[in-house]
Amino acid sequence: MGERVAGPEIERLIQLLARLPGLGPRSARRAALHLIRKREELLAPLADALRAACEKIVTCRACGNADTCDPCTLCRDERRDRDTLVVVETVADLWALERAGVLSARYHVLGGTLSPLDGIGPKDLNLASLVERVAADRVKEVILAVNATVDGQTTAHYVVGLLADSKVKITRLAHGVPVGGELDYLDEGTLAAAIRSRTVF
Amino acid sequence: MGERVAGPEIERLIQLLARLPGLGPRSARRAALHLIRKREELLAPLADALRAACEKIVTCRACGNADTCDPCTLCRDERRDRDTLVVVETVADLWALERAGVLSARYHVLGGTLSPLDGIGPKDLNLASLVERVAADRVKEVILAVNATVDGQTTAHYVVGLLADSKVKITRLAHGVPVGGELDYLDEGTLAAAIRSRTVF
Repeated sequence: MGERVAGPEIERLIQLLARLPGLGPRSARRAALHLIRKREELLAPLADALRAACEKIVTCRACGNADTCDPCTLCRDERRDRDTLVVVETVADLWALERAGVLSARYHVLGGTLSPLDGIGPKDLNLASLVERVAADRVKEVILAVNATVDGQTTAHYVVGLLADSKVKITRLAHGVPVGGELDYLDEGTLAAAIRSRTVF
Repeated sequence: MGERVAGPEIERLIQLLARLPGLGPRSARRAALHLIRKREELLAPLADALRAACEKIVTCRACGNADTCDPCTLCRDERRDRDTLVVVETVADLWALERAGVLSARYHVLGGTLSPLDGIGPKDLNLASLVERVAADRVKEVILAVNATVDGQTTAHYVVGLLADSKVKITRLAHGVPVGGELDYLDEGTLAAAIRSRTVF
């Protein structure tokens, strides 16, 4: 669509929407039209919500979570277990674990994984603060909830090395068959791990 | 995700993003995290673009298009053919036809289709202004570019009736095999139309 069809403001809105994950050029156009049609119910509130997010969201200096307060809501929550620290790669992983609702621990967001090919080394991640925190808060268990990818596992091994002196108990997530998963669709590595870690019925 | 995890501003942003077509609750969360991570490059510009759209976008009083000026860019374009008027249901259809790039005509956006079941009658559409416009602009051809749905075709027949006195030539889009389409996947109605309207090779 050239500039002939619509003013530059609409074009710019479509271009920005197309950069959201899950939206391509076509769905961004549909989203823009939807917003224009629902100006009062959606366009104006979304503009305000984005502006508010832009002004208020900060990174928690303690754990690296994104929130509107620092320390974040989770770090302020006194009911949470101070003995356990869950190490995650990203804020998205933290949210995913919170949705599971099993843990009432605190988190530590690394901000990514070690990746020599992409030039991401230990100094680019929140690793120094992790070691400090484990010592200062007298953490008893560190759960390494990193992705089961090569980079995730490399990072996990590096963290284990960093915490070797602290005598903290270090655990990791179990491998196995996803709940609701069908064996036929699973890769061999997952199946092998599920068999090795089998439990008594 | 309860209020425990993130502040109400983030929750509200996710809820609003989830109302965009193409984004569900899960992808809205991913989009929100993406926006938070790219605050300067994406979050702030998108907030500004939405605010600008909210303030500047108006409906063209001549044709019903959405633009930042009234009359809209298309209606102002003097190079466009004044003899032909393309009647479409929505602004999305107008944009789709402009992307095809075949026409250099003006448009008339009805704003929907007649739909007695949904309580949408002739007064809810831009029909009166269509009749006025055809007479005032001495339009020679009206192309009915409405959807090939029951409601679209009902609306087309109604428009034909409205314009019966004006002696304007009324045409409609051809039915046939979509370019790139495979016959095996097409419905019988489309195939029958494509055979009836076959052309000499």
